[in-house]
Amino acid sequence: MPESLKSFINISDLTEKQLYDLFDIADSMQEILDKKEPCDICKGKILATLFYEPSTRTRLSFECAMLRLGGKVLGFSDASGSSVSKGESLADTIRTVAGYSDVITLRHPHEGSARVATLYSHVPIINAGDGGHQHPTQCLLDLYTILKKKNTFAGLNVMISGDLKFGRTTHSLAIALGRLGANLYFASPPGLEMPDYIIHQLESDLHVQPIIFHDLREHIGIADVVYMTRVQRERLGEMEYLKYRGSYVLGNETLHETKSDAIILHPLPRVGEIKPEVDADPRAIYFEQAYNGVPVRMALIATLLGVI
Amino acid sequence: MPESLKSFINISDLTEKQLYDLFDIADSMQEILDKKEPCDICKGKILATLFYEPSTRTRLSFECAMLRLGGKVLGFSDASGSSVSKGESLADTIRTVAGYSDVITLRHPHEGSARVATLYSHVPIINAGDGGHQHPTQCLLDLYTILKKKNTFAGLNVMISGDLKFGRTTHSLAIALGRLGANLYFASPPGLEMPDYIIHQLESDLHVQPIIFHDLREHIGIADVVYMTRVQRERLGEMEYLKYRGSYVLGNETLHETKSDAIILHPLPRVGEIKPEVDADPRAIYFEQAYNGVPVRMALIATLLGVI
Amino acid sequence: MPESLKSFINISDLTEKQLYDLFDIADSMQEILDKKEPCDICKGKILATLFYEPSTRTRLSFECAMLRLGGKVLGFSDASGSSVSKGESLADTIRTVAGYSDVITLRHPHEGSARVATLYSHVPIINAGDGGHQHPTQCLLDLYTILKKKNTFAGLNVMISGDLKFGRTTHSLAIALGRLGANLYFASPPGLEMPDYIIHQLESDLHVQPIIFHDLREHIGIADVVYMTRVQRERLGEMEYLKYRGSYVLGNETLHETKSDAIILHPLPRVGEIKPEVDADPRAIYFEQAYNGVPVRMALIATLLGVI
Repeated sequence: MPESLKSFINISDLTEKQLYDLFDIADSMQEILDKKEPCDICKGKILATLFYEPSTRTRLSFECAMLRLGGKVLGFSDASGSSVSKGESLADTIRTVAGYSDVITLRHPHEGSARVATLYSHVPIINAGDGGHQHPTQCLLDLYTILKKKNTFAGLNVMISGDLKFGRTTHSLAIALGRLGANLYFASPPGLEMPDYIIHQLESDLHVQPIIFHDLREHIGIADVVYMTRVQRERLGEMEYLKYRGSYVLGNETLHETKSDAIILHPLPRVGEIKPEVDADPRAIYFEQAYNGVPVRMALIATLLGVI
Repeated sequence: MPESLKSFINISDLTEKQLYDLFDIADSMQEILDKKEPCDICKGKILATLFYEPSTRTRLSFECAMLRLGGKVLGFSDASGSSVSKGESLADTIRTVAGYSDVITLRHPHEGSARVATLYSHVPIINAGDGGHQHPTQCLLDLYTILKKKNTFAGLNVMISGDLKFGRTTHSLAIALGRLGANLYFASPPGLEMPDYIIHQLESDLHVQPIIFHDLREHIGIADVVYMTRVQRERLGEMEYLKYRGSYVLGNETLHETKSDAIILHPLPRVGEIKPEVDADPRAIYFEQAYNGVPVRMALIATLLGVI
Repeated sequence: MPESLKSFINISDLTEKQLYDLFDIADSMQEILDKKEPCDICKGKILATLFYEPSTRTRLSFECAMLRLGGKVLGFSDASGSSVSKGESLADTIRTVAGYSDVITLRHPHEGSARVATLYSHVPIINAGDGGHQHPTQCLLDLYTILKKKNTFAGLNVMISGDLKFGRTTHSLAIALGRLGANLYFASPPGLEMPDYIIHQLESDLHVQPIIFHDLREHIGIADVVYMTRVQRERLGEMEYLKYRGSYVLGNETLHETKSDAIILHPLPRVGEIKPEVDADPRAIYFEQAYNGVPVRMALIATLLGVI
């Protein structure tokens, strides 16, 4: 159990041991969910969900996690209905809401906002996305899904595809996977490659040498995990869009080239980059991945509240 | 008990036996409510309320129903704070939220959306309004209210009044009442009559001959039930508005002509079509009708969850 | 226990005995909170939060209070997602929601709306702000905070500072404090003084003679309680802003002149009128004040529901 965990802001806050401990707890949470019986682990506890930006999946899966634990939820899904619209600072909102809850999950457009929030709260803060910077519970559930399906990260060929420059949640996923021993394949259109500082960190600190290329189909046959993300069409020139759309929109044709036991992941929401025809393929497990947010977030909440 | 009920999309999904069974369950739910004691029938269960369009009555009465059953609620009351604003499809949202809940209630602007949702969900879907198409829990509580007050539908003179062309929730109410043996009176301004296909269905399939007329006052003296709905002034010409406003705005003067044991219903919200002076009349039971949404929806949720 | 309390609309609805009884109950609520154990006092009860205007603190602290009592919450934080956007009257919304809940808390932009709501509800109404008129639970928690820190109101020097003309929640606070025996000091820029009818009520009815002045620093040395509120810069001319900003923006320099055991209060949100440098001072207790909204509102809800 990650006993020293006070808040969860960045995936790299967790030691490898803490990470695996958390996944063990998530497994036991899944057992609780499978029983379909009421659970009172967090009875009397309150989760505050402060979402300054829209979200379905993240907010509702946090709420589901807390309700499944027997706890309760308050908060807002939109800053316009809050004192923020009167100009209140994040620090003041956090200090106030910390008095109304036992744990706070925060989504905020500014990078570093979750870290700042920890300075003003005596209850744990969970970063549910701070601008383009970090979305560490997404990273947690991505890793958990891979581990459940593949049993290990060591030696696994993980292809991360899409806009790797601006799709910043892929950055922490890449670092985490590198740390855990996976082989990394980065597929992105020209101009949207993984930033140099991430490559440098992988190579220098973690001694991982990622393979970098432009057409997903070039290496898709070797991938154990294909992690799709969105490429916003407006970031590409028309010529490049036409050239690469087959690469960054996954259909059955491309899927045909992947290993029979590969898994296809996507953080969702998707807007066209995986065709609906793919959904029926057993390798397409992005909805199972989304579902895994529940046991993982249950594990995180219960750990931070010190109730297990 | 309607054991085979997997989702509730259309009032005509229910057999007559299932309908009466549901009303029996609603009666026992009312007994639970009368006791004013906590109930744990749905302890540990989660209702997701996905409201893509505004609603007070429907959303809050669903939430009340689930909370009174001892369950919990998550969701959104407005699509702008959700991934929908990022372009996610309804199918993907449903597949995701089905992982976070035990039953989903959906209000969506597109006709047929609730039926589509059932294709992507392993948990029951309740249609809380799909565009102008259906609003079957409104129909349920309307029928339940009539039955509680009148004990039978057979031979009952039910007058449905207002814009029967575009006020489409009246369509399924008319069909349901015809099926259950009521005599039907349709009062609408010229041009806003009940559509031909509804009349045809009543006459050919159900052998019910509705009385069709333009001025509510013409037959109001015979009505056991007066079901008022809104006529949007902009749908009428000025001459017709002046001619019929006394008919489609119910005041004490018109009420004076109704039977002493008639009941006045309205799905609410009203915007002027029943004058406040009517509220004090014992025949005006539209707030009781709105309240009946609670036991009826409790019965529906409990049935769909298989907990009774 | 204030047995006769049916709704809570105006701070002056409470007798002095009822007020002190409520504070005793708030103390016992604080003991419950300190135990950090689940509480079932309001199990099975529902609080409806109808917020027609934005709020973080008030809405979330009401929700927290109800959840800490073991009850449940439904409602809206924004009228746009409700039938209000279809033109429903407040009376109709209240009559409906009264059927879905055991107690209603209402924030509405129109003065007197909460009082009107009581006419249409068979469940208790709590006024959570009716326009600029009253915000009596804010007044309650202000008084509770002062009493907890100072043990009495009699003879206490309370300075209320800021825009006392338009900052209308200060009006009921002033009257309440006058009634309870405090000495009153009103510091406001010229043109933003406390209205004559409040002064008259204090002098004629309560025989309290407030000290009225323009520069907070003039009397700050004598204050036991400094209650800061906002001065909107746009209400002042530029010359007056420059002249008085040191008075109505509290920093360490001014704080230096206050008594060592004074307390600094603010209803929050603040937008610049107390500098962050003040937060670390033990006299600055506005976040504790905000927190006190929880036990006070727990006491109020439990009293109105008759569960203690």
